[in-house]
Amino acid sequence: MIETPYLLFLGDAPDMLAAKVAIGIRDWRPENAVGQLRLPGCGADLGLADMSLDEAKAAGAKTLVIGVANRGGVISKEWKKVLVTALEEGFDLASGLHNLLRDEPDLRAVAEATGRALHDVRVPSLSYPIADGKTRRGKRCLPVGTDCSVGKMYTAMAMERDMIARGLKATFRPTGQTGILITGDGVPLDAVVADFMAGAVEWLTPDNDDDHWDLIEGQGSLFHVSFSGVTMALIHGGQPDALILCHEPTRSHMRGLPEYTLPSLEALRDMALPIARVANPACQVVGISVNTQHMSEEVAHAYLAKVEADMGLPATDPYRFGAAKLVDALARL
Amino acid sequence: MIETPYLLFLGDAPDMLAAKVAIGIRDWRPENAVGQLRLPGCGADLGLADMSLDEAKAAGAKTLVIGVANRGGVISKEWKKVLVTALEEGFDLASGLHNLLRDEPDLRAVAEATGRALHDVRVPSLSYPIADGKTRRGKRCLPVGTDCSVGKMYTAMAMERDMIARGLKATFRPTGQTGILITGDGVPLDAVVADFMAGAVEWLTPDNDDDHWDLIEGQGSLFHVSFSGVTMALIHGGQPDALILCHEPTRSHMRGLPEYTLPSLEALRDMALPIARVANPACQVVGISVNTQHMSEEVAHAYLAKVEADMGLPATDPYRFGAAKLVDALARL
Repeated sequence: MIETPYLLFLGDAPDMLAAKVAIGIRDWRPENAVGQLRLPGCGADLGLADMSLDEAKAAGAKTLVIGVANRGGVISKEWKKVLVTALEEGFDLASGLHNLLRDEPDLRAVAEATGRALHDVRVPSLSYPIADGKTRRGKRCLPVGTDCSVGKMYTAMAMERDMIARGLKATFRPTGQTGILITGDGVPLDAVVADFMAGAVEWLTPDNDDDHWDLIEGQGSLFHVSFSGVTMALIHGGQPDALILCHEPTRSHMRGLPEYTLPSLEALRDMALPIARVANPACQVVGISVNTQHMSEEVAHAYLAKVEADMGLPATDPYRFGAAKLVDALARL
Repeated sequence: MIETPYLLFLGDAPDMLAAKVAIGIRDWRPENAVGQLRLPGCGADLGLADMSLDEAKAAGAKTLVIGVANRGGVISKEWKKVLVTALEEGFDLASGLHNLLRDEPDLRAVAEATGRALHDVRVPSLSYPIADGKTRRGKRCLPVGTDCSVGKMYTAMAMERDMIARGLKATFRPTGQTGILITGDGVPLDAVVADFMAGAVEWLTPDNDDDHWDLIEGQGSLFHVSFSGVTMALIHGGQPDALILCHEPTRSHMRGLPEYTLPSLEALRDMALPIARVANPACQVVGISVNTQHMSEEVAHAYLAKVEADMGLPATDPYRFGAAKLVDALARL
């Protein structure tokens, strides 16, 4: 569990594309971000107050979060200086970088000396149990995709936001590093050892109130041969009551796999539902989330209308047009 | 890669049940076992020559393999004495125990001083790549089960033996610690980090001659919620041309999951085949392997005949009645 709120470190990020994690925190947990810290030459700007470490400390920040990707897998001298000072001034550090904070001897030494925590959210911080498959109380919703990176995380977060605005009980459950940094907690599922994947998801989505919904972050795709095992464990560990089918209609092939075309929404439904019903016989596909970022608004609406007619299910782009239709569908269950 | 042949260490195993690994080596790779080493009180006997370390060395043994389970997850003082002496006399050590040889400071020190290897086959010894899904040359066959521990490993090994006896090109590809100790090589798939599972299977089953068959050891079950993610990665990484359905008909519930009943062979076929065709559109279900160990011979034959009629596929218990029917089915592909 990462202590909030955060100061968001943008370093010398060349542009906003490099600041995906920081943007996610600002957009989805603005209350977690007291300000941004930028180095000379930084081309990214979140529109938050620029703060020094001292100013952020005074504003209540507990953790300096590395909100940008770095180049070449090294932590530069300029970054290091800020990170060391932050530890000395009482901040914890949190990072989703491939190269781990804990593998930097100087950061490790200063963290130990100052009693501060180094959170590397790409690697599990716990030993998870083997899944026992027992039915848990409360409700669970899982987005599953025709491909990786089609908007499963945003779908779950948009649904959580809509549900909380309606006064419903809902919790977004992150399963990847961006989601973990946004909320401060979760399971980095793709870094868990095979035998414990489903158990980690059971741990992440425990017993809850009967009218509480976990919105679980999806991972991979049943149709993506590199990562489908992770998706499978997520479905069986999550034992969802509701599946949301997620799709990006303009993609010409599976992400990173030029030889593989995307499946249809029908094929995804027909594969995912029997799999989900192994763990939860009552599971239903309740709606469709389409990532329409590469479509005009007119084309997007026409596409969504066609999907609704073809599939007999509500369809929306939750980021662009709101998640209300999907939340309505959950409420009807 | 573990150096063969082996001296099989049975320690003070109370009975043959504890000697599963050693029995597997004796049964499936008798040429890998020059003899057995037993301590006072040992209740297991493989029927191999009892040998001291010196005698085994003289007979050509390169590795002392721990062929039994230990009790309570500790390596006893009596075992330790043998293991240390073995290293000093020039043996490598190999183990599938949960507690690792490398975690024993004395074994580690002696291994380093003598330049010998400690093989802990429960943990990966390599960094595997992320799967790229590219079509590989050669043919691959994968047994998939209605449950865990229904005989998938024995099915693959029995098919390999039958194929080699016929002069066909075939290689058993182990994915678990018993198989790895039997053959000396393989991938401990359940211990691989999630993102790399399918890539590990691609690595294990590389390009080969067009008429060569890999017989891949199965793991878990698509219907076993604790381990289904491993099975999924095995199917998509293995991109099998042929699936064998494996079943144990007398089981009342899924192994370790008392709330879950076993699926039918039809349900397994209907779930596994579309999944396999994502990675290999030409994949076929070619036969059925039934573990009939809890049935009389008469009941077993009647059951197999019924399965053949119901499923329209050849069915056998390869351990009891031979794997010829399954190999014939591969040859017809």
